[in-house]
Amino acid sequence: MAGYGLIRVGEHWNKSLRHLGAEVYLDLVSRVGEVKINKVYVSSLFAAESSHQYLFAPLLADHLGLEHVPATRVEAGDASGGIAVHEAFLSIKSGMFDSVLVIGAEKMTEHVASISTESRAKLLDSKYESPHGLTLAGTYALMMREYMDKYSVPREAFGMFSVEMHKNAVNNPYAQLRFPITLEKYFESPTTADPLKLYDCAPISDGAAALLLTSLDYGKEISDSLVEIKASSAATDNFSIIDRDSILELKSTSKALEEALSEAKVKRRNIDVLEIHDSFTIAAFLSLESLGFSQKGKTHELVLNNYFSKDSDLPVNPGGGLKARGHPMGATGVYQLVESYMQLTGEAGHFQVPDPKNILVQNMGGTGSITAVHILSRIE
Amino acid sequence: MAGYGLIRVGEHWNKSLRHLGAEVYLDLVSRVGEVKINKVYVSSLFAAESSHQYLFAPLLADHLGLEHVPATRVEAGDASGGIAVHEAFLSIKSGMFDSVLVIGAEKMTEHVASISTESRAKLLDSKYESPHGLTLAGTYALMMREYMDKYSVPREAFGMFSVEMHKNAVNNPYAQLRFPITLEKYFESPTTADPLKLYDCAPISDGAAALLLTSLDYGKEISDSLVEIKASSAATDNFSIIDRDSILELKSTSKALEEALSEAKVKRRNIDVLEIHDSFTIAAFLSLESLGFSQKGKTHELVLNNYFSKDSDLPVNPGGGLKARGHPMGATGVYQLVESYMQLTGEAGHFQVPDPKNILVQNMGGTGSITAVHILSRIE
Repeated sequence: MAGYGLIRVGEHWNKSLRHLGAEVYLDLVSRVGEVKINKVYVSSLFAAESSHQYLFAPLLADHLGLEHVPATRVEAGDASGGIAVHEAFLSIKSGMFDSVLVIGAEKMTEHVASISTESRAKLLDSKYESPHGLTLAGTYALMMREYMDKYSVPREAFGMFSVEMHKNAVNNPYAQLRFPITLEKYFESPTTADPLKLYDCAPISDGAAALLLTSLDYGKEISDSLVEIKASSAATDNFSIIDRDSILELKSTSKALEEALSEAKVKRRNIDVLEIHDSFTIAAFLSLESLGFSQKGKTHELVLNNYFSKDSDLPVNPGGGLKARGHPMGATGVYQLVESYMQLTGEAGHFQVPDPKNILVQNMGGTGSITAVHILSRIE
Repeated sequence: MAGYGLIRVGEHWNKSLRHLGAEVYLDLVSRVGEVKINKVYVSSLFAAESSHQYLFAPLLADHLGLEHVPATRVEAGDASGGIAVHEAFLSIKSGMFDSVLVIGAEKMTEHVASISTESRAKLLDSKYESPHGLTLAGTYALMMREYMDKYSVPREAFGMFSVEMHKNAVNNPYAQLRFPITLEKYFESPTTADPLKLYDCAPISDGAAALLLTSLDYGKEISDSLVEIKASSAATDNFSIIDRDSILELKSTSKALEEALSEAKVKRRNIDVLEIHDSFTIAAFLSLESLGFSQKGKTHELVLNNYFSKDSDLPVNPGGGLKARGHPMGATGVYQLVESYMQLTGEAGHFQVPDPKNILVQNMGGTGSITAVHILSRIE
């Protein structure tokens, strides 16, 4: 990884999807200069719904002035960003490309075509889940209720996780919800899908992020701030929660993690920061357990003991995570990787964690139907 | 390429998108056995519109029983199939995967959500083209009128191309329009977007095709019928025809072709069969010219002299092409590559061309915003 571009997550009513993409590309160029780009990957989940656009990857490549450069759009739900970077990684590995640009861009607020609960429900099984009224939040609510019942978990733990994310986001200039919340505020917030409260859920967001991947040789030519992708892996699970042995295990995450650790030849204890997919607080808890950084049903104890706080030994989502940085679905994975790049190159400013060497990034689609895991390392 | 699965293109009202995908996978398994699969790519343009399904790649992987296998959906308009194979090719090249399955699957007829002219117009620029009433067929109609005027081309030439495609499709058991047409019938057909007649246009289609890509070593283990992908390339052009120097040049095609020839180290004269993207007859003419197999404005002369007939030295679309095999948009590129694989392994039955060694396959998105080109060679 050799460079990045970002725009603050938020409600960008006055900017089109291509505008967001162009803005982060220009931000990237302002940092690394006008470098050679051989290939583009674009991750955008809702381009056809919110912006009436198929072929958004070639459109964006043209809009950026990248003449004739091949451009592929990747769709993997809200794991689109992580999967796009995974595909970009493979294309560099193939030896056919030196320099590959990934742009994640998403519009969820749009005057006549804002992304609805029904649109998001297309992330569920269109035969066995969504037609029966199940929604994305509704599915996570089922998981949360089961989790709370099975392990006698107090709500405070979920609230504290949310409080922590908001606290982190205050220091991240690119975050959407840059305000602290209290446990009281969490409890007072409306119920979205019982037992989920508003502050258990990531917001509706627009945003875009750009990441430049290069071969090591070309990277050295153009940048002094390189980060190594030590592992890039992906795995799927039974699509519908109905088919899973347990709705409290995210097997796509544990499988992708296992492969990433073996590919990177690192141990869990070498990981200094975790960047996880907290689309809902329960998603965060289950992710931490499926990644093996917390025991089953014990995450609340760690959270209540500030084990994952920004100033702990194992900070989780120092930029505020999906919960408070925001969750522009198709772009989220790219944000996660860009923020981790910033941490490893010491560019994270007020949300910088002291001196991290290895960061693990987990990006999940839907209810965990697919997960992308990356392990990033500082180049000494 | 080590194996394939197919279903006849048509109107599959009683089959869901996942059903189509499963059927071609089972067809593939019946040919090559239950082989190892490390990764899946899925190309389907309209999954979210016709089947209310995001994350269709992980869904299909699960539906096929491919436990935990990573699965990526690629969207590049009606070039999705060719681009999916391109990405699969890169992932094999990366050395990280031995055996990669590509499934193209498309439903364009669906009881409550058939794909409309408006849906297809999302293949145009959502800011400068479609909002002003331009449609996909309308854009090709502009190209056709300009072509006919500029080069004084008789309509017969377009008609004859269509007649030829229908003739070829009669012998292809997987083709949708397995009936011959006459020039008279062509002229009598209704006008869709002047000057396009119905028989200038590919039909609305459902369909699915599966293709297995492997490393050479693993391919030898599992199959006696291997085909080499000598080149796999992609390129983009100015997205909107408004921005192009000429609306009669498909620069994404000429650029991708140029790269493919240099990658494969073959000359045009070594190509024995052309498989081209004839979504409209004018698209075929411009493709042949942009690929350099015909001079600008001269294609009609070659067509009228049967230069591209199935029994000529340079057959074009011996299976009937998009025009008559059908055009299930996201799956089309996979069909093209599967049919070419069948030709090179001598499995094309009644639509077999005698003894081809090299086949060139061109698959285009929208109005030529992106093109994938493959050069396939028999392994002696």
